[in-house]
Amino acid sequence: MSKIKLDFEGFLRRTFQKPLDAIAGFLLKLGITANFITLFGLVGDVVAAYLIARGMLLAGGLVAAFMAPLDAVDGALARKTGVVSKFGAFLDSVVDRYDEMILLAGVLFHFQSQPYTLGIMLTYAALCGSVLVSYTRARAEGLGFSGKAGFFSRIERAIVLILGLVFNQLLISVGIIAIMANVTALQRIIFVWKQSKQA
Amino acid sequence: MSKIKLDFEGFLRRTFQKPLDAIAGFLLKLGITANFITLFGLVGDVVAAYLIARGMLLAGGLVAAFMAPLDAVDGALARKTGVVSKFGAFLDSVVDRYDEMILLAGVLFHFQSQPYTLGIMLTYAALCGSVLVSYTRARAEGLGFSGKAGFFSRIERAIVLILGLVFNQLLISVGIIAIMANVTALQRIIFVWKQSKQA
Repeated sequence: MSKIKLDFEGFLRRTFQKPLDAIAGFLLKLGITANFITLFGLVGDVVAAYLIARGMLLAGGLVAAFMAPLDAVDGALARKTGVVSKFGAFLDSVVDRYDEMILLAGVLFHFQSQPYTLGIMLTYAALCGSVLVSYTRARAEGLGFSGKAGFFSRIERAIVLILGLVFNQLLISVGIIAIMANVTALQRIIFVWKQSKQA
Repeated sequence: MSKIKLDFEGFLRRTFQKPLDAIAGFLLKLGITANFITLFGLVGDVVAAYLIARGMLLAGGLVAAFMAPLDAVDGALARKTGVVSKFGAFLDSVVDRYDEMILLAGVLFHFQSQPYTLGIMLTYAALCGSVLVSYTRARAEGLGFSGKAGFFSRIERAIVLILGLVFNQLLISVGIIAIMANVTALQRIIFVWKQSKQA
């Protein structure tokens, strides 16, 4: 699976390399740090989650869509300033998890206010799958394995969720994330198992 | 915080060392492996979650209480057989996350069937805190930091949840986990930040 993986994230990074660098250069002149951008994205996602929880899915989706690229901007900014720190990488990863948890909390509140059992349980499953994708990789790397397998990483999850919000098809989006993220987590577990067999 | 941490898990392990070893020795004679015990615990927690989802909290709590010590048995068994593998450690960690997610899915279904907004959102927050405690440590260790800080680890979470199920105080249990697990996750983030300042 990992061999035929379309590197969508890499493709986006290459495509938007120049505008990303331009934005990073502009922020650098303003004296803004990578960690500030990381935390600014978190605050923005709290606003998006609030809008989603109140049923304003389009507005919430648009705010989330504005915040999503910041995840690439902070890295570009860190490289430009030469301050590529291990704590920066740690904070970026952890805040990514908070971003997803907060957005899906908004979705959960929206579904439970109807109330809608399928929406509630799929949102929960989407969160579980999303964090398992990240957890399996982090735990694998901590033990000396590689954990980079599967095709449904954070950027794909963010795009699917934002499309569902903007086009008012939230249940379908959450269902896709619930299935695809959990499949990706299982792919990573099998990927680590295969590595352990070879060793 | 980590200096004055009461090592509750270590205390339990020392106290129950002999019965644990006896059980592990018995299972060894039956030809049962550590990974089998890990996966057996997962199936048991699916049964517990089903009971909880159907509102049978006491029964679900008792099944979960029977499954919880298996998390120590698999490690004891692995040490006894000399098969302490890195994949075993990986599988044990990942299945621990599934165990928690599945039990809390039962709790979520129970609360949404009433429906009960506070219960739903606290269960979601409890899950987020629980996985963040594990994720922050795994990510920290992958980057070369130590992530072992804070006092509310898996065993404390399991005990609080089981007590809430058995004594029919589920909302209080879930509320405690939601607060304490998220505080512990923040403690770990600060712990990693302090290490990065020293380096």
